[in-house]
Order: sequence, then C-alpha cells, then structure tokens
Amino acid sequence: MNIIQIIDKKRRGESHTFEELAFLIQGMLAGTVADYQVSAWLMAACIQGLSLEETTWLTDLFVKSGSTLDLSGVDGIVVDKHSTGGVGDKTTLVLAPLLAASGVKVAKLSGRGLGFTGGTIDKLEAIPGFRVSLSTEEMVEQVRTLGVAISGQTQDLAPADGRIYALRDVTATVDNIPLIAASVVSKKIAAGAQVIVLDIKYGRGAFMKTLAEAKQLAETCREVGKRLGKTISTVLSAMDQPLGAAIGHSVEVMETVNTLKGQGPEDLEDLSLTLGSVALVGAGRFSSMAEARVHLKKSLASGAVLDVFRQMVVAQGGDPAFIDEPERLPQPQQILTLVSQTSGYLGAVDSLRVAESAKILGAGRTTKADVLDLGVGVVLKKKIGDAVSVGDVLAELWVGDRSQEQAMDVLSSAFSFSQTPVPRPPLVEEIYCVEPVSSPRR
Amino acid sequence: MNIIQIIDKKRRGESHTFEELAFLIQGMLAGTVADYQVSAWLMAACIQGLSLEETTWLTDLFVKSGSTLDLSGVDGIVVDKHSTGGVGDKTTLVLAPLLAASGVKVAKLSGRGLGFTGGTIDKLEAIPGFRVSLSTEEMVEQVRTLGVAISGQTQDLAPADGRIYALRDVTATVDNIPLIAASVVSKKIAAGAQVIVLDIKYGRGAFMKTLAEAKQLAETCREVGKRLGKTISTVLSAMDQPLGAAIGHSVEVMETVNTLKGQGPEDLEDLSLTLGSVALVGAGRFSSMAEARVHLKKSLASGAVLDVFRQMVVAQGGDPAFIDEPERLPQPQQILTLVSQTSGYLGAVDSLRVAESAKILGAGRTTKADVLDLGVGVVLKKKIGDAVSVGDVLAELWVGDRSQEQAMDVLSSAFSFSQTPVPRPPLVEEIYCVEPVSSPRR
Repeated sequence: MNIIQIIDKKRRGESHTFEELAFLIQGMLAGTVADYQVSAWLMAACIQGLSLEETTWLTDLFVKSGSTLDLSGVDGIVVDKHSTGGVGDKTTLVLAPLLAASGVKVAKLSGRGLGFTGGTIDKLEAIPGFRVSLSTEEMVEQVRTLGVAISGQTQDLAPADGRIYALRDVTATVDNIPLIAASVVSKKIAAGAQVIVLDIKYGRGAFMKTLAEAKQLAETCREVGKRLGKTISTVLSAMDQPLGAAIGHSVEVMETVNTLKGQGPEDLEDLSLTLGSVALVGAGRFSSMAEARVHLKKSLASGAVLDVFRQMVVAQGGDPAFIDEPERLPQPQQILTLVSQTSGYLGAVDSLRVAESAKILGAGRTTKADVLDLGVGVVLKKKIGDAVSVGDVLAELWVGDRSQEQAMDVLSSAFSFSQTPVPRPPLVEEIYCVEPVSSPRR
Repeated sequence: MNIIQIIDKKRRGESHTFEELAFLIQGMLAGTVADYQVSAWLMAACIQGLSLEETTWLTDLFVKSGSTLDLSGVDGIVVDKHSTGGVGDKTTLVLAPLLAASGVKVAKLSGRGLGFTGGTIDKLEAIPGFRVSLSTEEMVEQVRTLGVAISGQTQDLAPADGRIYALRDVTATVDNIPLIAASVVSKKIAAGAQVIVLDIKYGRGAFMKTLAEAKQLAETCREVGKRLGKTISTVLSAMDQPLGAAIGHSVEVMETVNTLKGQGPEDLEDLSLTLGSVALVGAGRFSSMAEARVHLKKSLASGAVLDVFRQMVVAQGGDPAFIDEPERLPQPQQILTLVSQTSGYLGAVDSLRVAESAKILGAGRTTKADVLDLGVGVVLKKKIGDAVSVGDVLAELWVGDRSQEQAMDVLSSAFSFSQTPVPRPPLVEEIYCVEPVSSPRR
C-alpha cells in the first residue's frame, strides 16, 4: 500500500478500505504522509464523495487518534450539544444551565470563533475573571459537583480531525457533508457524553445553504453515530436571519442573561427549549418533548436556571455581578443606530453581512492571532416579518475604535424590505429525537 | 481574489480567468500559496478538467516563470524533439547527429530518468569523460560551431513547471492531458527552438495508455503551441514493446552507435527517420517527408551521421574510442540469458516489466538519490511476431551486483506467447507534420 495509490483511488471515484484510510490518517499524524498529499486526497473526496462506510471509518480514526474525555467519575447522564455554527447563536450559554437545572449533567467543550463572529469561549471571556481553560480534572470535578462546566477544547481530543480541519480551511474543502459529519461526530464521541444533540443550521448564514443539505448532514451524523455505538439526536434550525438580536460578546452574554430570566428573544428561547427537550428525552428524564418543554419553561420562570448559571460563573472564577449590572461587561465606546429609509415589512436579514459588520467592528477574527474587541457588536431591533416605518431603528452598532463607517455600510446592506406583509419564517424545521439512552429516572 | 476562492472555483468545475491562474502560479513561486493549496487545486483540475484556454494560460505562465534559452546567436533553424517517455527510447541520441548532419541545428536539453529506466543524460554518462552539464554559453557555442549539443536541463527554464511536476509526482495527479501538455510545451518553448517535434508514446509502456488519449494529448500540445506562436509537429508511436532491443545505459549507447552505422534495429531506425523527416520538413529543408527520408537514409549509410556523433562526443569531453571498442563502456559483471520454455510466436512484451527488470538490476532510480549501474540492462533477442522455439534466447540480462534472480523473474513475466502467427504491430500510428517555419533553404 502506498499513499499515491490511495489518493489515485479516490481521484477515480473508487471506495477505500478501512486499512487505506488508516494508512492516510496515521501517516499524516506520523509525518510520513505530507500535507500536500492529504489535501489532494481531501479534494478528491469532496468531488468524488465518501460512502457512509468510509465516513464512519474516518470518524473512528479521528476519535482513536487521541484521548477520550473520561466522564466515568460523573454520576448520571452527561449531555452534549453541538451547533454547526450560526450568527448570534448563544444557545450553548442558555442550554448548559437549563439542562443542569433539570438534573442532567453538561460537560461542554467549546471552541473559539474564526470566520464568523466569536465562539462560545470568546463570549464567556467577556465575563470578568471567567476561566475558559479548565484542566480535565477541574472540568470533571465541576460537572460532578455543580452539574455543568464549559471549557475550551483541549488539544488531545481527535487531533487528526484538528489537523484535517486546518487543511480543509485553507484548501476549499470545508463544505462537504461526509467530512463535516466525521469532524462533528468524532469530536462529540471523544468528548465522552452519553446523549448527543446536534443543532444543524441551514440557510444563507450557515455552512449548509439548503434544508436538503442539512437533512443529509443530520442523517449522515446520526447513521455514523449509530454505527459507532452512539445515539445522536438532530434538530434542523433556520439561519435565515441571526438567532436572537445580539451579535458580539458582551451583547450576547447580556442577551443570555435575559433569556435565562425568561425575558429573551422568542426565537432564542424557542430553540433553547427545543434542544433542551430533545436532550431531556434522550437522557430519559421525560418520555415526551411536550412534557419536557413545560418543565423547562417553569424552570426558567422560577429563576432556577439563572441560579445555576450564576454558580457556574462563580465556579469558573468569574464575578457574577454583571448579571445584575451588565455595564460591568466590556463596553463599546459608542452606540450608533441604523435607521430605516424605507417603510414596509422586513423581508430578509442577511446573517453573513450582519456577522461581517460585527467582525469589521472587532467582534470576529480573520486569523487566529487577531485580538477581539469584546465590547462591540450589533443588536438587531427588527426581525423578518416586522413592520418598519421610515426612521425606525433597524439595529444598533456597538462600536469601538475600528472602522465604523464600513461596518455601518455592510450592516445596512443586510436588510431588505417588502411592501406586502412577510410571514415570520419557521425556526425549527425538523426534530429527530432518539429514544432514551437508559431507563427513565424521573 | 484569494487562493481559497480560486481552488473552490475549480472544485465546482468552473473556468479560471488568466488572472486567477497567474495568482496561483506566481503565489506558489513567491511562497504565498502553499504546496497543500497547489495540490488541492491540481486534484480539482484533474477531476474537473482544464479548458484549452486555461491550459494555454498555464503553459504561458510556466514559460514566463523563468528564462528562455537564447539561441539568437545560432544561425539557421534550431530543432528540438521531445518524447513523452518510453522504454528503450534512445531516439534523441540517434536523431541529434542525424539532423545536424543534414544541416539543421539541434540544441537538446534532456533530463535524467526517474521511475522507468534512465534518461538521455544518464545514458550519455556511460561514455567515458562525456560532460552532460554544459553552461548556456558552452551549449550555444557548440550548436553554433558543430550544429549539435545535448546537455542536462538547467534549473531556470520553466521553474514553475518543475515545482508543479514535483507535486504531481507525489499526489496522484500525473496522468492528466492538460497538465502534461502544459509541462511538455512550456519546457520546449523555454528551450528556444523554432521547430518542435513531439514523439507521443502510447500503449502499456507509456503514460498514455490508449491511442485515443495520445491523439488528444497531441492535439492539445499542437493547439497550445499554436496559441503561443510555436508550430509543433507530433508523431504518435506505439510503446507496446520496448523500442529497439536494448534497455539500460551502455547497451543503449551501443545500440545507438549501431543505428548510426545503419545497422540498428528496424523499429528504432524507422522512428528516428520518421521524426527526422518531420523535423526536416518543419525546418524547410525538404518539402515532403518522403524526400527527407531518402536523404536521411543516405546520410546514415555514408557514415556522415556517425562522424557528427563522434565530433559531438569529442566536443563534450568524451573519449570516442568506445565507438569502435564498445567494451570501453561500463560493463556488466556477467551476461545471463532468458531462455524460452515455450514454442510459438511472441505475442506481447510488457515494456513496464522489462523496465522494472532493468531497474532491479540497477538501471533505474526509485528516488533521485539512487546511484545507477551504467553497465547493466536488458537486451531483447525477440520482438512481437517473431517465431520462438523452446530453448531460444528471449533476452540477455546484463547483470551487476544487484538482485539477479528477481530481475530474471520479472523479465520472464514480460513475455507472452501465441500458438498462431502474430502480426508485427505498427510502430508509427499518426504523423502530424506542420508546414515549414520559414521558406525552404536547400
């Protein structure tokens, strides 16, 4: 077996054996297969395709390339959620305390953002003192005692996926369903949870541009999970406009706090409750999503979820004073408003342009070395379907010392209008909720 | 413009602009486009294809990435010939003095072999004292005075092609017609000759496995040449069995000398005369190939061609004594014979296995660092269509100190037999001879 023959097979659209994929991945890690060979193979795989069998083997090889987070010291069921990435998506921040307050454990490893706006870890860094780099021991201990922890991803989970992802990012081989599935599922398996919920975004602001692609990715992830012994639930949610109103860091933390108080934007609360219900059913806490949802709503209203969030902030070294005094978070130098020149109905909000605008202000990175401005961002004041009059505020720009005019131009190009009423688009399109992983324990 | 967008375009099967290809090639040379990005693009180009326009731009970019051999100091028409690579192909050694003896100039830059057996430059090194690394000045001066020089390729002709070729070699992107055409044509244009003849091999022992592919490559090369202002003639010749009888270095030089005396194998002489006739017509020395061929045959018979060869050897520092005393060339330790166990007719001689056998003996390289044994090789005693009796010698193995048994096994597997007569296969399938580049000057 040699690497050139392996690449050549995929170039010609043939299927690999497990041994061939192992030769590729292990060779890459050992340094006997060069990056330029991996990238040639990646391109061939993107164009010619990978079968479900090949995707499963690849996922397994990714998992086995590193260690798996050992959660055996944690009593009860541990849940993990992953989103394929969207603009304004702060559901992890809402969902983690939401689930912990209902008695299931959440050990969440999150990433930093690149490309769009910041990631969950970046957002948490807006909280004064909050530590995002827990050791494995600290993480397990906090999940054991408090029921929830969110920390940055450590290097040794699925390192082969990390290497492959870095290459995909620079070789135009990112948007490929089998490769995305292998990446997502391998990281979730390596992160050790029993119940896995994937939130797969679709629409202009997401990796998956269409619902059809999103369905295919969801199906691939579930099937790969099943073949590797993990049941995975999937939710398909629209990314036709940003989720919630806030895009940035401080602004998203503030919106999270409001949502935990039961005063958040409707779409963010809805998606958080949906994902939470799926997780609770998967964990065997409830036998129907409807029951789970009622329970979660009550939990929010009671203040119990906000309490858990506060405890998590304290456990990870943060000062919880910002929960009542949001001005303690990093602030912008100024808040500008984007005012409508048109009257009618808001027809579309281009998530990518909103994200780009926030990025220009300093809320996103172009390279890993870029330093974020945690105080800046965009806060939308209108969503699709809202009636708009000339002079209405469409959005606020929370600006710092970076190019405000360019950000304003890009943001204003994100909105388009209709003279006739526009229906509010559905947020959640399809829910595939698996059976509980163990017998119910209510 | 950024490199990821450019790669992505080809991934989706779209066509590039000249600027995009320039960004890719110039970025590669400047170090701003990484090898793994070039190889991802190469794979996309292999699978999705490159148009004639893209191939022409790529060729032009290769040429302009380095210097062009300046032959303006040479009076008269300079001819260049290139073969796409075959087993036992020593036509360059025959053709160069053949053409020079007819008054056209030959400035030939040749390569070393990798993969199959040695290249022309390796073969010339079998001649005691022969210098294969002429400076550009020495080369031009020798062509000016003697009419012929053969030297190793310098680094600065089409360096982008060299970089691309090195990547193709290790990423399963070698056998692609547009990329082969861009490589071949760019090197020929950079080598400065006015008349270019390409000998395109097809069959099991060649890059082009079928006649159809060979025709397509020939057509692509001619069309790219035309668009870049060079007229290119093409000859398609079969590589169903090795050319001539000898495969190695000393043995090929000896066969060359015999051919220059008019006593060479029929197929080698035939192809040399065909290529020579095409070149002489292209150079305007004759108006028909038939006339040119008669002239070349006479020239061989007169000893004039061997004289030019002798002068070239002397001019490049070699000792011409080997011409009359071939034992002065590097010799094998022993000559073994492969004897037929079958009677009938020789049906096929697998060129690749013959080459592999010679390589095992030390006549070919696996890596650039391998040291060749110039004294070893294979000499075929039967060709396709010959009647064979049990006990007849099929081939000689000129062996040195490397694995003889393995070489013998591989060589014996190269021959297959028929119980009914087998027609001799045609050698030259198609000749596309261009009009003279200037008015005839007989």
